[in-house]
Amino acid sequence: MSNEVYIIGAGETKFGELWDKSLRTLAVEAGLKAIEDAGIYSKDIDAIYGGNSLAGLINKQENIGALIADFSGMAEDGIPAVRVESSTASGAAALREAYLSIKSGEYDVVVVGGVEKMTDIHGSDILEKSSSILDREWEAFFGATPAAMAALIARKYMNDFNVEKEALAQFSVNDHQNASKNPDAQFKNKLTLAQAMNSTPVADPLNMMDCSPLSDGAAALILASESFMKKNKKEGVRILSSAVAEDYLSVSSRRSIYTLTSAKQAAEKAFSRAGIKRDDISFMEVHDSFSIYGLLELEDLGFADKGQAKKMVYDDIKHDGRLPVNPSGGLKAKGDPYGAVGVGQAVEAYRQLMERAGENQIKDARYALLHNMAGTGVSSIVHIIGE
Amino acid sequence: MSNEVYIIGAGETKFGELWDKSLRTLAVEAGLKAIEDAGIYSKDIDAIYGGNSLAGLINKQENIGALIADFSGMAEDGIPAVRVESSTASGAAALREAYLSIKSGEYDVVVVGGVEKMTDIHGSDILEKSSSILDREWEAFFGATPAAMAALIARKYMNDFNVEKEALAQFSVNDHQNASKNPDAQFKNKLTLAQAMNSTPVADPLNMMDCSPLSDGAAALILASESFMKKNKKEGVRILSSAVAEDYLSVSSRRSIYTLTSAKQAAEKAFSRAGIKRDDISFMEVHDSFSIYGLLELEDLGFADKGQAKKMVYDDIKHDGRLPVNPSGGLKAKGDPYGAVGVGQAVEAYRQLMERAGENQIKDARYALLHNMAGTGVSSIVHIIGE
Repeated sequence: MSNEVYIIGAGETKFGELWDKSLRTLAVEAGLKAIEDAGIYSKDIDAIYGGNSLAGLINKQENIGALIADFSGMAEDGIPAVRVESSTASGAAALREAYLSIKSGEYDVVVVGGVEKMTDIHGSDILEKSSSILDREWEAFFGATPAAMAALIARKYMNDFNVEKEALAQFSVNDHQNASKNPDAQFKNKLTLAQAMNSTPVADPLNMMDCSPLSDGAAALILASESFMKKNKKEGVRILSSAVAEDYLSVSSRRSIYTLTSAKQAAEKAFSRAGIKRDDISFMEVHDSFSIYGLLELEDLGFADKGQAKKMVYDDIKHDGRLPVNPSGGLKAKGDPYGAVGVGQAVEAYRQLMERAGENQIKDARYALLHNMAGTGVSSIVHIIGE
Repeated sequence: MSNEVYIIGAGETKFGELWDKSLRTLAVEAGLKAIEDAGIYSKDIDAIYGGNSLAGLINKQENIGALIADFSGMAEDGIPAVRVESSTASGAAALREAYLSIKSGEYDVVVVGGVEKMTDIHGSDILEKSSSILDREWEAFFGATPAAMAALIARKYMNDFNVEKEALAQFSVNDHQNASKNPDAQFKNKLTLAQAMNSTPVADPLNMMDCSPLSDGAAALILASESFMKKNKKEGVRILSSAVAEDYLSVSSRRSIYTLTSAKQAAEKAFSRAGIKRDDISFMEVHDSFSIYGLLELEDLGFADKGQAKKMVYDDIKHDGRLPVNPSGGLKAKGDPYGAVGVGQAVEAYRQLMERAGENQIKDARYALLHNMAGTGVSSIVHIIGE
């Protein structure tokens, strides 16, 4: 018997500043949407995998897997639940462990949920808490923040490869253009290059429009074994491959400040297992928590030579370009609820590949590459999803 | 090909107040001991699964899987790493996901590490931070703490089943007796029943000697596929089964305040999969963060009728009794470093079953049952390990 794994349903909340919704409300809202979408019953569900990054620090609540099982009513039947954490890549990390659990034969149907409630951070705590995704002893302790680290990387990259700031800004412009047609996106305003270039400085050379926002949100997927799918005549998309790699936590320990070695390694593994080529990819969702990372990902995932992503950001990555990137709007415009991001990327892939992306539909989409990244690139998780 | 999973090496740090060792130092110390014990090389290792409960809140450090990969030098090769969290059951949760990853065929050799650095909590923060393992909105927000919840449960249990406090204290006496011969234990002093009964009240009816201590510590295991084991002529013990169940996070939502429904369900699943009976169990390691839980576990894991554990605590659970419990010293005396506990239980099982437990060796040990529990019983994870 084959042990292929499929996504047979997906759902997400709107991403944004959702002041009227709590962590548990968000998680369950997304989960119920996914369950409804898959047309299954709670009795079909074998386990819950929850991806979450900061609920301990933000909400003083650990054991998010159990929280979801509780608040969804599924604890009544003792359903297994666990939280998987890999900071900002927690969503894809949960997806990956859920995928392996079905491959192992342990489960047939698993709910993967990603959730984060970033606006529950009290104003002044944001830098301290979000910096827990860096190396606390070698980076954050000295005052480094995620934006500061991204700015250091951007500065060196722009210098060494003669890249203008405009190329970075252009990545955000593309995100906003796409998000304008995504009903779940946080920002639907179109962004001009001039607006992006002239926005408030955050950590030079990065402006406000180079930085993803603080977002609340949740996303959920229903994964199923091939045998469940066939027996219940469900439709879905297949997870062709799942791969992960780690780099040093502290940027200072890495071989190259602007090379996402973990992304390179994860992509190589993912392509080799999926048995397809980069040319086969119809679109990508990448982790542009800062615009600079969008460019690095184009390169390190293997779609541009080092320093040459600047050639892709004007046309190639557009919705109707050669390789559409972030049709969802990406982290910059769809939003950046840490632990939900990786699951949300897969929700977008599912919708596109099922031809249910509405106004945002990419024509003839067959294969999606998803890259969810932890912190400044310490962990990279790549999933390739296909029809 | 069979896809059985074996433990081929184990190591742990001493548990205790380890002021001179940091979170990452502890994790790597335990990992290196396990690697050395297994006689493997770092190139043999396919992935790292890290169990940790509170490093986000205590150390302001997330992504503990990546931290271990980094500090052990294994990030150099991009080794996959992830953190699994299920509050105080994070250790067993990591063990379980690692076990599934090998069963899925994804990996052959995995390091499972559990680590916690409880003494990095600033004094007054302990109640607030440790209460993140409860339901924040329905319990902790109103001032409930883990000890307060355990006391409520104990009070009702003692009343309904006519149990004297002495029976609870006796559970701790047994732990200390066993820990006195465990070189890794935090407390090696023998405890008399009178000392336990007269210790400082914490949350009536629980005294200091009913409560596990704050502990630093780390534990690690090397898991391997059967094919790796045979090819490399390794010895080890087999994981016969791994099972998990969830209950409601808030005790007030549960069907019975003193029934660990999750433990009942997990134990049923674990025995049914392992194909052995309760009579076959040579010893158990249970999660006695508070002495009351030790009694509830004897009952809900299926070794005593409800309310009757009091009959077992004087003789049966002793090291040379009918069913030795906590030969390691348990959470009360070996120590309670949250995320390391479940992995540490498996270290003890490995040593006993390999007949390498020294002075603490249980004669003819063949099967061990391990129960790692989250919070007040919201998640229960049972592993059965055999020769």
